[in-house]
Order: sequence, then C-alpha cells, then structure tokens
Amino acid sequence: MSEYVEHEGNGLSVGVVEKKSFTFAHPPSEMTLENGSALGPVTLAYETYGELNPDRSNAVLITHALSGDSHAAGYYHDDDDAKPGWWEIMVGPGKGIDTRKYFVVCSNILGSCMGSTGPGASDPKTGRPFGLDFPVVTIGDMVMAQKALIDHLGIERILSVVGGSIGGLQALEWCLRFPDVVISAIPLATTPKHSALTIAFNEVARQAIMADPNWNNGHYYAGAKPDLGLAVARMIGHITYLSDESMRQKFGRRLQDRSDFSFNFDADFQVESYLRYQGAKFVERFDANSFLYVTKAADYFDITRQYGSGSLVKAFSRAKAKFLVVSFTSDWLYPTYQSRAMVKAMKKNGLDISFCEINADWGHDAFLLPSERLTVLIKSFLERVYNEIKR
Amino acid sequence: MSEYVEHEGNGLSVGVVEKKSFTFAHPPSEMTLENGSALGPVTLAYETYGELNPDRSNAVLITHALSGDSHAAGYYHDDDDAKPGWWEIMVGPGKGIDTRKYFVVCSNILGSCMGSTGPGASDPKTGRPFGLDFPVVTIGDMVMAQKALIDHLGIERILSVVGGSIGGLQALEWCLRFPDVVISAIPLATTPKHSALTIAFNEVARQAIMADPNWNNGHYYAGAKPDLGLAVARMIGHITYLSDESMRQKFGRRLQDRSDFSFNFDADFQVESYLRYQGAKFVERFDANSFLYVTKAADYFDITRQYGSGSLVKAFSRAKAKFLVVSFTSDWLYPTYQSRAMVKAMKKNGLDISFCEINADWGHDAFLLPSERLTVLIKSFLERVYNEIKR
Repeated sequence: MSEYVEHEGNGLSVGVVEKKSFTFAHPPSEMTLENGSALGPVTLAYETYGELNPDRSNAVLITHALSGDSHAAGYYHDDDDAKPGWWEIMVGPGKGIDTRKYFVVCSNILGSCMGSTGPGASDPKTGRPFGLDFPVVTIGDMVMAQKALIDHLGIERILSVVGGSIGGLQALEWCLRFPDVVISAIPLATTPKHSALTIAFNEVARQAIMADPNWNNGHYYAGAKPDLGLAVARMIGHITYLSDESMRQKFGRRLQDRSDFSFNFDADFQVESYLRYQGAKFVERFDANSFLYVTKAADYFDITRQYGSGSLVKAFSRAKAKFLVVSFTSDWLYPTYQSRAMVKAMKKNGLDISFCEINADWGHDAFLLPSERLTVLIKSFLERVYNEIKR
Repeated sequence: MSEYVEHEGNGLSVGVVEKKSFTFAHPPSEMTLENGSALGPVTLAYETYGELNPDRSNAVLITHALSGDSHAAGYYHDDDDAKPGWWEIMVGPGKGIDTRKYFVVCSNILGSCMGSTGPGASDPKTGRPFGLDFPVVTIGDMVMAQKALIDHLGIERILSVVGGSIGGLQALEWCLRFPDVVISAIPLATTPKHSALTIAFNEVARQAIMADPNWNNGHYYAGAKPDLGLAVARMIGHITYLSDESMRQKFGRRLQDRSDFSFNFDADFQVESYLRYQGAKFVERFDANSFLYVTKAADYFDITRQYGSGSLVKAFSRAKAKFLVVSFTSDWLYPTYQSRAMVKAMKKNGLDISFCEINADWGHDAFLLPSERLTVLIKSFLERVYNEIKR
C-alpha cells in the first residue's frame, strides 16, 4: 500500500489516481434509450481505487450528484493544485469506504460534461457537438450505461452502490433495475421521486439558462456560452443545498468588505458575494446543456411510476438489496419524510433495512460534509454486508 | 352606502373606486432620502375607501407587498374585466377591515411602477426615465413618503397600519419612525429583518434580471425590456410564496396536457407550466427595475440595526402602538420564529401585543388567501383598538 499518502486534513489518501474512460455501444450496436432513441458510441469516464479481490466480491460503486464527476478520491498527478476528489473525506484507506478492503469504482454519468458522452460531445452524425440533439436521457439510462462499465470491469455482483442526492436516485435505480446484481445500497439525502418543489427549483434554473441569449437553443459550443444564465441556475441550486439555519450561521446579515450599505446593486451582504462567486466559479467547469439534461433526468425519476404502477411498496417488491438509508434533518430539498416513505415501503417488503436521520444544520449539503456519524454508519454497514456474503 | 355592490364570491364590495395620486416634494423642497440624495417631485398613487370621520380617528393604512399596488379593494369603472382589488376579501363593507367603519387608505410605494415615482418615472434632470439613476430607496423612505400623503389627507393619527410581507416591513417602520402617529399595527407574515435565506432568494432574482442583456444596466425603457430575466425572477419568487406541502397538494407530479413525458425541454409537469405562466404574466404588469429597487429596500430593512444598535428589544422600546402579529405555519420566507422574536421583544417593552400563528399549508401566500380566522382576528383587533380610543 505504498501508494497511499498522508494528506493534510483528510487523513490517508489513495494518492495519485488516473481518470480512465470506457467506450461501448459502437454502431451498429448502439444503446437503446428509454425514450426509444439510439445512442452510440457511448463513453463513460471513471476512476477506481483499491483492488478487486480474486472472487470479485468487494466492488463498491459510487454514484455522483448533479455536477459531480468520476474523481471521488485521490489526486491527479498532473495537477499542481492537487485538488482532492469530491468525496476524499469518505473514500480512502481506513475511511468510511475503505479502499484497503474494497474495490471502489466512481463513474461519471451519461449526459454529464466531465468526460462522458453528453450534449457537449460530438454527434457522430454531424461531427459537431450534439447540443439539444442529444436525447433526453433518464436515470435509468445512466444506470444502463454504468452497467456496461461494471460488466467491462468484470464485476458480476456489486457489494454496494453508494450515492447522495441525484447519486442516490441512481443507487435506487440500480436496486430496482438489477436486483440480482446489487447486494446492498446506500442512498443518502435522496428521494424516490422529486417533489413539485424540487421540480420547481430545477425548472426555474433551466429557465434561467434558456433565457440567456447565448444559450441559442443549445448550440453555443462554437461561440460565447450562456454563462450568465448558468450562473443564476447554480445560485438557485446553492440556496437549496443550504438551509435557513446554516445560512444564518454562515452569513447572517454580515456585510461584505464594507461597514455600511452601498446604496447600489453591488453585493452588500456576504451571502450575495458567496452566491455570485459560486455562480461564476461553476461556469468555468460545467456545461449549461448538461445542467439541463441531468436535472430533467432527475425530475423524470419516479420509481413508483416506473416500477410500482403508482405504489412505492410495489416498486420495492422488486428489490433484493440490503439498504442503509440516510437523511439529514435540515435537508429541505430531499426532506426526511421522503426517505421515511421509502423506508416504510422497503420494510413492508421485508427488506433488510437500516435508516438513520442525522441531525445536521447544513441542509442538503450535509451529506458531503465531514460527519463522524455518517462515516461510522457507512463503514459498519459495508463491513456487515461484506461479512454476510463471506459467511 | 348605495355605492356598495354585491360581488360574486367576495361578498359586498366598496364598488367602483378611483385611483388617485398625490405629488409633493417639489423642487427646491425635495425629499431627502436615507442615502443622502434628494428626490422630487415625488408622486404616490393611492386609493381610499369609506369616509374619514369628523374627529379623524378612523384611518387605516394598508401597506402592500413587493408587486402590489394601491388598488386594494373595489373595481375600476373603466375596467371591463372588473378585476377586484388585491385584498378584496379583507377590505369592504362588513369585512375584516370594514369600510363602513374605517377610512381606509392604500398607498403604492416609492420605487414601485404602479403610478408612483420609481426607476421608470421621468428624471426631471434629463426628461428620460431614471433607470439606475433612481436612488436606492429604503423602507424608511417609503414610509416618509406615505407620511406626506397621510398629512395631505389631514390624518394626524392612524388607527392602524396593516400590511403583509414587505407591507409588514412598512407597518413596523411606521411604528418605530412615527410612534406618536400610529395607534396600532398589524404586521402579517413579516419579519424585523430579512434572513440570509431571504436575501439570497432576492439576490438571485436580481441577478436573473441583470443577466438579461435587454436590462442594459437599467436603461431599457425605450427598447426591448428584460422580460426573460424578470420572468425568472418572478418564478423564483413564486416558489418562495408557496410551500412544499401546498405545491404537493396543488401540483404533485401531475403532467400538463400529456400522459407521458415529452423527452424534451417543454413543460412536462403542471408545476412547470404554472411557473412559466406566472413569469410571463408578471412581465406584462411589472417593471424589472422596480423589482430590483423594492427587493433591495426590503433586504436593507433591519430594525435592530436602524433603531436598536443591534437589539430588537431596544428597537421596540421606541414603539407605542398596540400590535396584532400574525404568522403562518408553512411560511418559510418569513417563518414564525421571526415573528416570535418580534413578539418577545415587544413584550419585554410592555407593549399591548396579540400574536397568532395560523395553521396554514399555503406558505407565505397564506396571508392573501381567504381565512375566516385571519378575518376575525383583524376585525376584532381593529374594533377593540377603535373602542379603546373612543372611551
């Protein structure tokens, strides 16, 4: 394990990692999507940490949220800044998802802009970026693509699919679409279907992007990008990731670099500066069309509709996985009552289910923040599930 | 009282009303604003219902919310559609604010676009609309302008100032700025200061407007208006006016005019259609710059800072009014805990205070919806206060 390095603040790290990619569904064997259209070739960016054991029983799949990527842990060799993966606090040697024990795969999603096929990718038919010619994909399509990757990696059964937020939607979809593949799942801060409130926020964010003239009906890759619209979309998102309480603690009514009001439309308050900064930073790394596609997929996601003819209990009758469901008290984007509804439906099906609502002020974002509680929950759940299949 | 007419669903109405206006602060006697600049002449649009009694003791001032206007009750003669005033359910003969007993004044606010001086008004210096040359006004400035109107109407003491949301901010400001004028106040669904969350929503809405190239730094009156940006701003607002529960009841995941998903970026869900419609409708009647100015004034509002050196208790030590404070359980824009904090500070000052948290699913909007409870509360409070001064 000499590759592991000590990294300040994050404990041991998997160290230098490499972003890989897998391409499949080459024409004429394209992937058939849920909307009936064909897509191919399809590329998924992914990373792996740790080693697949000889009986291939230790694979953990991490699924990421809206703007995430395959870089869950470690550092890129060519990156001077050595920015750690987005779940460095959870994934690594001895951590919640222990890379000494498990072979961890993190896959970017179909429709994203982080190395996988999405609206910014080149359309084989035209040689130009798809733009809105990219088909509207679903969470199911994302999982189908991940399944091809998992097959490619020689994994027949997945010890656990772990993801928060939109990553949690993928974890649930995995359990219902491939019940014989998934041994366990850890859906964090997520929901069986978006509420009207969550759809509303996503729709307004999409409208902000589409209102930007640079968006140009999705065809902007050769020119100016809809940065202003995407920044507004991101700001809306950031509000929903926090909570009233966390914003009060973090910002309150504190002024930014001034002792009195500006009496103009500058950012007077720290919370305004924070949102403007988050918006401006986001447009450097994310594609506006991908934002549209991923949020739409999430809004469409509804396991009661897809698998249960309207019944959540019926939907989970397909599942065979053991579950660890975690929600956070101040998460108002995917509130606890939605997790509880899932848990109830799981229990009615006699599933092996652990549920925990973690007391946290930090809103939806809490699932990504350091939490000894969450780390211990995930670590012991994975150990138990692993020991049970080894018996 | 032959002018009163029966109107379907709303009971008796004050009937046909007339929009009036009052202009003051003519140069060289301009109004001095809180930011130090001078503004004049200033026009306020207003309406009155009922009659001022001989001893001028029955005046009730209604203060409106963000996008409201002076048309609180009745119908315009020249309006074929006969759209009732925005608080027709509360204001009229025999209603919560009884126009048979009280002389009711509703004043549009400084900075608005509904007949009063605001960024869309003509700048006397240039003869063109102010745009961003309009000074950033405060809730205090709005109340100073209303005071000039009240003086003009010959009212020395106001029986009650009644307003919800940003109208509630004005009601509070009235009590602290003119403690000897205001006999009572009814701040509804409001707050002593905007939380970071509320500022955040306002800021994102402003950013949506300013991201629209048609906004043109506020100078758009001669050309295309920033309709797309303003529509997004309004959609954000509408989400905050509702609640998770009310949106679930009102929309759930119901699809709009279709049985399956569109698999494109049309409005699939009813909640999406609703928001798009609200956005499109709003731009027909409201000015984007006024949206910026009024939200900024509301964000600046902070009675602890202005009147209490940071203490809410100290701020209310100035007040002499009797208060009826009302909050609504599902209002997450101005949550009950903020009203409770006010009430506590009022009580510590020995003020005559009634407080009620109304059980309501409809979020912030609840203060504008029919509620027998709210009607009775307001009616009996006004009666009591009126009887007490008559004793």
